[in-house]
Amino acid sequence: MVTDQRDAGRRLVFSAIRKAGRIARVDLARITNISAATVTSITAELIREGLIEETGPNTEGDLRRGRPRVDLKVRGPARYVAGMKLAYDTLTVAVLDFEGELVSESHMRLSRVRHSADELGPLFALALDQAAEQGGLKRSDLAGVGLGVSGTVDANNGVVYWSPGLKERNVPLRDMLQSHLGVPVFVDNDANLVAMAEMFFGQGRGVSDFIVLTIESGVGMGIVINGELYRGARGCGAEFGHTKVQLDGALCRCGQRGCLEAYVADYALLREAATTTDFNDQATAQEKLQSLVEAARGGDQTAQMIFERAGRMFAMGLANIVNVFDPQLIILSGERMQFDYLYADEVLDSIRKSIVQIDADPPEVRIHKWGDLMWAMGAAAYAIDGVAEIAMQQIAGHAA
Amino acid sequence: MVTDQRDAGRRLVFSAIRKAGRIARVDLARITNISAATVTSITAELIREGLIEETGPNTEGDLRRGRPRVDLKVRGPARYVAGMKLAYDTLTVAVLDFEGELVSESHMRLSRVRHSADELGPLFALALDQAAEQGGLKRSDLAGVGLGVSGTVDANNGVVYWSPGLKERNVPLRDMLQSHLGVPVFVDNDANLVAMAEMFFGQGRGVSDFIVLTIESGVGMGIVINGELYRGARGCGAEFGHTKVQLDGALCRCGQRGCLEAYVADYALLREAATTTDFNDQATAQEKLQSLVEAARGGDQTAQMIFERAGRMFAMGLANIVNVFDPQLIILSGERMQFDYLYADEVLDSIRKSIVQIDADPPEVRIHKWGDLMWAMGAAAYAIDGVAEIAMQQIAGHAA
Repeated sequence: MVTDQRDAGRRLVFSAIRKAGRIARVDLARITNISAATVTSITAELIREGLIEETGPNTEGDLRRGRPRVDLKVRGPARYVAGMKLAYDTLTVAVLDFEGELVSESHMRLSRVRHSADELGPLFALALDQAAEQGGLKRSDLAGVGLGVSGTVDANNGVVYWSPGLKERNVPLRDMLQSHLGVPVFVDNDANLVAMAEMFFGQGRGVSDFIVLTIESGVGMGIVINGELYRGARGCGAEFGHTKVQLDGALCRCGQRGCLEAYVADYALLREAATTTDFNDQATAQEKLQSLVEAARGGDQTAQMIFERAGRMFAMGLANIVNVFDPQLIILSGERMQFDYLYADEVLDSIRKSIVQIDADPPEVRIHKWGDLMWAMGAAAYAIDGVAEIAMQQIAGHAA
Repeated sequence: MVTDQRDAGRRLVFSAIRKAGRIARVDLARITNISAATVTSITAELIREGLIEETGPNTEGDLRRGRPRVDLKVRGPARYVAGMKLAYDTLTVAVLDFEGELVSESHMRLSRVRHSADELGPLFALALDQAAEQGGLKRSDLAGVGLGVSGTVDANNGVVYWSPGLKERNVPLRDMLQSHLGVPVFVDNDANLVAMAEMFFGQGRGVSDFIVLTIESGVGMGIVINGELYRGARGCGAEFGHTKVQLDGALCRCGQRGCLEAYVADYALLREAATTTDFNDQATAQEKLQSLVEAARGGDQTAQMIFERAGRMFAMGLANIVNVFDPQLIILSGERMQFDYLYADEVLDSIRKSIVQIDADPPEVRIHKWGDLMWAMGAAAYAIDGVAEIAMQQIAGHAA
């Protein structure tokens, strides 16, 4: 019992240090509601284990003179982790230290878009070796690997129910990769990991409730409530792209009708455009989409109509999320230029008009464009979470 | 600092006792992560203040002999509260003790459906006097009054932005009632309070994440995440009835187009029915709706078609909620017989087909029919929450 309490207290203290960045012992006691004596004893133990270290005061924002204080922070080299983002045709790896500082990155072009689960182990091993080497590390120096996969993922069990990047369904990807790579692996839906990146490194810092929407070949969503990722009962909530915006509507890749994705994803736009456009058969989907965007910009009314409806459907879906969640902040996060039309002023205006009108400010909408590296950093942040938990279990083992 | 910790610990312990119903000190220490010595000291203080009392062990489920133990529980007569539900044309009051036991109830028929905010104080005073008297109490014995109002309510500030039962908009209802009634008043959206009633007295006991949908003249939703009501950033989240199910769709009472309510609420059904039916002008909305239900049951194809579409729209809206939240449990809660069509097997089946298909069980859907009394009990549970917080502040004041 007493050991359980000590373990729980250690978790609380370490988690508070990680969230704060830098923090004094007296503030740790206040935040965690643990006595100052116990905080002193726990932090001594964490320093002994090499997980945290003392540091000078954070002078930013603390200009009161004459108060010498020592802050605590996570010790960067205590652990290294990698985060990976398996995007359309690119594999991006970010190596971070335990403090979340970027150590190195690598990008690998893939020869195909969909993979068999068996092919991923060797591919990932190669990419991790590359990235680790660029940081002056070996793969065996990594304490954990985080992976973001688009599709329906049960993060608790590391199972990918379905992903556009995988040939098979119901793949126990975490366990497969773990045994191939020989390090702990943490798998989650990629939009959830973007939300995690926004929480730790981006626009979501210091915001307790927010929603991240990612728009790439599909539409993803991550929900942060009370400073934690909301995953739902089966570990795979937040399927924004497959909420229905039209009864018996357009056919979706998932096999159902009327999903938001079936109106706004790239395949949906190209499907519509093919009705009136003769695309070059040799062109990639990306190139076709680019030509559609250019046609719309050049005044082609059909192309404009296609984007205009996609924008209105997107606004309707997003307004529904606002009506249900009433978040403080919505972050629209994505990297592809061609999806600019979803961020158009008219779309944002249409969202504002479709939410329940009250005499209070609607949630702030921020647009945050970033590339695959930030997705990978989100995956790495998830790995840091997992590795921190392993470290806590190790200390509990030493102490017992 | 030490006082703050003591106050926080007291709140934690009292809240854990309230949630558990009956609990031993040793389990309190485990759950709250507070030392056994401090738990003993805090519980002694709460007993002294008359808020909790010792009780024999709960023999149900604890059949291990030879372990004499003493449980703690909230002391029922420590405080009395009332909960009120302002429904269509009825005002229902439930008086509960601090343990949540029903002491008395009263129902008052109202002569009109929409009220001016000024009229509510005298009306509520009368209803509270009646209900208190039936429980052998006076209104001045009530430590708090909870009120559930349909519409858009900012619970944190007790402001009703809009309600179909109120003539004015942006009414500071909590403060108005508080000064008229002379007791602390707690106002929230009525669907939130149904969720609270399900959490404390109903199908939601022991379930950490669930969603309650209420179907009366409108459609309401309450969301419970991690055992707490989710209220959103502006205190008025979960506007399920005004999520859009059709772009540029049917006109809603809220002034927008395509809201779910504009397809499934009673006014929406009657609006459709009026196209082909000559209703008796003297009939009430309830009577007209009843005749429409009977026509559908009697084989009238237009009436059946009206209900069938409403059911499909409802299924689509509900499936969207499931896709976004992935809850463990959905409770469909309402009292009106005429809404049976929304609970039809075909509707539930249609929901299952519209959610993202994974190899895991979909959330359980439970149908829980109950009347205005249970809505009022939810409002009372909200008042108990508020009164408990006031009690904690009082003790902190004594201790300081």
